Amino acid sequence: MRFQKSESDLVSENFQYKLLARDGGARCGEISTPRGSIRTPAFMPVGTAATVKAMYPGQVRELGADVVLGNVYHLMLRPGAERVSALGGLHKFMNWPHNILTDSGGFQVMSLSKLRKLDENGVTFQSHIDGAKHVLTPERSMEIQGLLGSDIQMQFDECVKLPCSKEEADRAMRLSLRWAERSRKAFGGEAGRACFGIVQGGAEPDLRIESAKVLSQMDFHGMAIGGLAVGEPQAVMLAMIETVMPHLPEDRPHYLMGVGSPDDLIEAVARGIDMFDCVMPTRAGRHGLAYTRWGKINLRNARHIDDPRPLDASSSCPGASDYSRAYLHHLMRCGEILGMMLLTWVNLAYYQDLMAGARAAIAEGRFEDFRRETRAGWEQGGEPPA
Amino acid sequence: MRFQKSESDLVSENFQYKLLARDGGARCGEISTPRGSIRTPAFMPVGTAATVKAMYPGQVRELGADVVLGNVYHLMLRPGAERVSALGGLHKFMNWPHNILTDSGGFQVMSLSKLRKLDENGVTFQSHIDGAKHVLTPERSMEIQGLLGSDIQMQFDECVKLPCSKEEADRAMRLSLRWAERSRKAFGGEAGRACFGIVQGGAEPDLRIESAKVLSQMDFHGMAIGGLAVGEPQAVMLAMIETVMPHLPEDRPHYLMGVGSPDDLIEAVARGIDMFDCVMPTRAGRHGLAYTRWGKINLRNARHIDDPRPLDASSSCPGASDYSRAYLHHLMRCGEILGMMLLTWVNLAYYQDLMAGARAAIAEGRFEDFRRETRAGWEQGGEPPA
Repeated sequence: MRFQKSESDLVSENFQYKLLARDGGARCGEISTPRGSIRTPAFMPVGTAATVKAMYPGQVRELGADVVLGNVYHLMLRPGAERVSALGGLHKFMNWPHNILTDSGGFQVMSLSKLRKLDENGVTFQSHIDGAKHVLTPERSMEIQGLLGSDIQMQFDECVKLPCSKEEADRAMRLSLRWAERSRKAFGGEAGRACFGIVQGGAEPDLRIESAKVLSQMDFHGMAIGGLAVGEPQAVMLAMIETVMPHLPEDRPHYLMGVGSPDDLIEAVARGIDMFDCVMPTRAGRHGLAYTRWGKINLRNARHIDDPRPLDASSSCPGASDYSRAYLHHLMRCGEILGMMLLTWVNLAYYQDLMAGARAAIAEGRFEDFRRETRAGWEQGGEPPA
Repeated sequence: MRFQKSESDLVSENFQYKLLARDGGARCGEISTPRGSIRTPAFMPVGTAATVKAMYPGQVRELGADVVLGNVYHLMLRPGAERVSALGGLHKFMNWPHNILTDSGGFQVMSLSKLRKLDENGVTFQSHIDGAKHVLTPERSMEIQGLLGSDIQMQFDECVKLPCSKEEADRAMRLSLRWAERSRKAFGGEAGRACFGIVQGGAEPDLRIESAKVLSQMDFHGMAIGGLAVGEPQAVMLAMIETVMPHLPEDRPHYLMGVGSPDDLIEAVARGIDMFDCVMPTRAGRHGLAYTRWGKINLRNARHIDDPRPLDASSSCPGASDYSRAYLHHLMRCGEILGMMLLTWVNLAYYQDLMAGARAAIAEGRFEDFRRETRAGWEQGGEPPA
């Protein structure tokens, strides 16, 4: 589709979403930007401080990632948005010439910063690094994302932790809607850049629906669901996705923020989600946990100490096929950087393979089989089938 | 050359050193083992705990390294030599199918372990990791190096810190000679493996000469100079090399252990050294220091914060050519693993390039020009010439 032309849309005339196939609730498609296409469902590796931790950018690309995520909160503190802009933008800075989506900073202001003060205008907070005072408003967040040169920019929102009272969820949802309007208005950017709205409303179906309906009228180029995977059971998360989905525009990408485990991804894809980001594969890798098609494997466990088998001999990722479990255990036990490098690589490869498998399955109308077979693999407890 | 056949030499019939060219005191050559050739002068990246820290093994190879070093002390403690052997040897364990040289453990027993007790038989010590008691003797050191599958094994020796008294240097040198005999006798290994002796004697010319002469009669496949770069000025180290060199067999490789800076390498090559190992490029990289042909650059320094220039645009290492100094500064400032990965890569690339440049210059009879031009580059203070 192309967006109906309006003055505000002119800047994004090269941003398109094409729905390629549906299979039950799942869909596969393609987002096109001047930087290239993003095949959906897509997993976006998180590049918090302008680096996908423990990975060379070329490796991330080779695994099949079309887009990575940058965090406004971290980047505004170090090295600073104006500095990144003067250095030629975030793509050049981190040597990643492909698509970048930036969050708005709202989530991490709430989770990381000190001495927050939230009002209608925005959030005043102290840096968790040096205590310096900063202000984030919808306008400043969009300005920062523009300075970074982000291809897909997110509205500034307030994300509450679950569980929370309905009053609190209602207040934060309405504030986020007002901030959505201000964000969309402030969104400038160059042709080809996009701005996404974020559905809030806690675990309250009526609030979620209202948020989705109002945002859908606001001329965003994509719709995100925020405020999930923040402490609630998976069932609640999936119920909220099911509640919201009928009210999201079909002709725009659907992005589930901050999610999740491989199981979360498959279940959310089954319900119509197109995009994901999560620190899980990278963070878990640094802590010795490997995601494979035979399930999770904790390499810190002493049972691997003499195991000559690779994590997955059939994997296309050398980290999974060319190193023994005994060696990976040894590296983690010794705190060696290579252990973190290899397991991060393995995990991001698995996440990308999972999304590639889902896309192919949806395109061929066999997503249910794919979902069942994938789940059966995870039941193997880390061991290849006998 | 091939070694004169004797019973003990049969095991190494495939280990050869060929002197290809001389230029002043400098020489270039080639060591051949069943695993491949080692072009000399050679820098051996240190793979302490079965990993060249923060590098994939394939990267190390691509930089031109023909051989890496493994540390007996670290590997005997974790994961254990018998375990590595059961897993197929160190080459397979660390996914490095090329040559491996192992030290004997003697140096690190002295520098790292607790509660050492040294006697004629060997050293009893406690692990710095868990306090467990271990014993290293010449026989056990050679057994461990054999279990690891090392291609070039080092005699067990005692290395004293400088400065030290002549009495102490004399005692340690004579003990090391007795241990050399025991090591050479215990050296078994398969065809193609080699065993090197180590010249000791502190900063005492007469002791060094005596050590070199006695060791030269012992049928070692190569000769190392140990106990240097242990606290003494560079001039003392170079004087000791000059003292020893006339007494080393010309037809065997000369290995200067634990050295050093790029300047140490060039000066030692000029005096006839063929092989080096040192943690400097890898350790310095993890701490933000880059070695380039324009000199050392400390990326932690705030002066790089807005510098869009790469470390060396003409380098063949992407770490040096594809990332700005501002970005590298940012990564080090944030403690990002990618910063350590990139700078380790840059430094090992520079060390390998330096050795490749020396080899080519020696072969073409222009080593003095190379040495002068290389030094002139280092005077640039990190800046390319205007």
